[in-house]
Amino acid sequence: MMKLNSFGQWVLMGRRCLNPFSRACMFSSAVKQLEGGVSMVQGASRGIGLEFVRQLLEKSDKGHVVATCRNPNGATGLQELKNKFAERLDIHQLDLTIDSTIEEAAKSVKDKYGYLNLLINASGILSIPNVLRPETTLNKVQRDSLLLTYEVNAVGPILVVKHMWPLLKVGGGTGTDRDFAIVANMSARVGSIGDNGLGGWHSYRASKTALNQLTKTVSVEFARKKDPIVCILLHPGTVDTDLSRPFQGNVPEGKLFTKEFSVQKLLSIIVNAKRSDNGKFFAWDGQEIPW
Amino acid sequence: MMKLNSFGQWVLMGRRCLNPFSRACMFSSAVKQLEGGVSMVQGASRGIGLEFVRQLLEKSDKGHVVATCRNPNGATGLQELKNKFAERLDIHQLDLTIDSTIEEAAKSVKDKYGYLNLLINASGILSIPNVLRPETTLNKVQRDSLLLTYEVNAVGPILVVKHMWPLLKVGGGTGTDRDFAIVANMSARVGSIGDNGLGGWHSYRASKTALNQLTKTVSVEFARKKDPIVCILLHPGTVDTDLSRPFQGNVPEGKLFTKEFSVQKLLSIIVNAKRSDNGKFFAWDGQEIPW
Repeated sequence: MMKLNSFGQWVLMGRRCLNPFSRACMFSSAVKQLEGGVSMVQGASRGIGLEFVRQLLEKSDKGHVVATCRNPNGATGLQELKNKFAERLDIHQLDLTIDSTIEEAAKSVKDKYGYLNLLINASGILSIPNVLRPETTLNKVQRDSLLLTYEVNAVGPILVVKHMWPLLKVGGGTGTDRDFAIVANMSARVGSIGDNGLGGWHSYRASKTALNQLTKTVSVEFARKKDPIVCILLHPGTVDTDLSRPFQGNVPEGKLFTKEFSVQKLLSIIVNAKRSDNGKFFAWDGQEIPW
Repeated sequence: MMKLNSFGQWVLMGRRCLNPFSRACMFSSAVKQLEGGVSMVQGASRGIGLEFVRQLLEKSDKGHVVATCRNPNGATGLQELKNKFAERLDIHQLDLTIDSTIEEAAKSVKDKYGYLNLLINASGILSIPNVLRPETTLNKVQRDSLLLTYEVNAVGPILVVKHMWPLLKVGGGTGTDRDFAIVANMSARVGSIGDNGLGGWHSYRASKTALNQLTKTVSVEFARKKDPIVCILLHPGTVDTDLSRPFQGNVPEGKLFTKEFSVQKLLSIIVNAKRSDNGKFFAWDGQEIPW
């Protein structure tokens, strides 16, 4: 079982195998039993994704992390972690807009580990200088912005879940004492329709709302098939990252979180997730967010 | 005021202009005052869209309808209505995937009428033989299906609202006695995240959920700017159309509606819409659907 210890650190405990017929044991000859499990963070080059990788590596002395990003060579933060954690960190190229890179990442994880205990889809776009800017009015809504944001924020993450699905199924009883694997998709409160009182940000909102629906849809299938996988959606709060930096002006004092704080809170939600959380949408403080 | 008479027919009453400074009167020199108003149905070649056009024309002896579809020459149902209603029906080519056709349709309506009282986005794709099929499992989810369905079911309708916005603003006090114009976007119950108990149909679900969010977002801006426009989302029920035909096997007896019945119910919701309905999602029977 993964647990928070008294220092608030995430501790991946060694696995036990009390039931010789459990899924974990059935797969024990086919996959390596690595204490601490295998986590994958998609969108790990900076921001929240990079911080997830850092905390997953630092808060235990065991556990392997697969970090993916579009351009590993330019991901200096990941390279620094690689220097420090060497064997416990793999870095793979993965571009959400290119199916083959997702398939190749899945094959790499399969060949090296054979399972996955945790998949965090941490990537997301809100703005790109001179290309994409959150809309302040319907008059500024453009086809290309809607489609690009949808592809990166909703389509890509779901295709990653699709290709990691077989590895997550195995991970539901292998590598950690937890009897299910976890998919944690980074959503955002602005993706809530019920909570939408301000308008604006059409492309981003719609993409996160769609990600919520796609994740819910997938969670229903996993539950129906009794796959040992729990899917949750997370709102990290407004975090001081490159994504939010151009839009921090209106954030009330005390409501702009550091990456460290937000990811600590989100990992606590992940660690404490229950089967009954499957298909739910949580804010950083554990409160459920309406659809 | 538009009202249902004792025969359940939609009657567009002649407009009054009691307040000489009302928006309607301010525009009265710029736009033609056509009794019965101007309605536009986007996606009108068949199914629910064609039925909306028919009922809008048949249930009053006044009122003009602008019907749009991708291929007017192949739209035999519309051509038949054109033979019968001549001057009261305009047919325009509009392809949701091509911005210029949306802009041209808006210009045509502006030049001929100068306003719009009702915009119904009735188009939608669920399946295309040999191209697109609703997914029964995550394993069948494909990038192209997600993107195509999103573009047609969510992006296109919102771009239509964007380009019709100036005409709807004028229509909020012109052409009918109603002091607001109405945007009615065809959504679907399967677009509800909260109501998603079955899973599957990933592309279609996500596109309709995104349409819900985009419509809500637009409704918030209209309200904030005090624009005289009310936006609603409608679930038509499972209707016997080309869209649903391949998937009618599991529909319980009595739950497969005729186009005539569903559109009659939906028009009743539209006719009876209040300002406080802005941004809401209604089923054919008037019940609100959770997000």
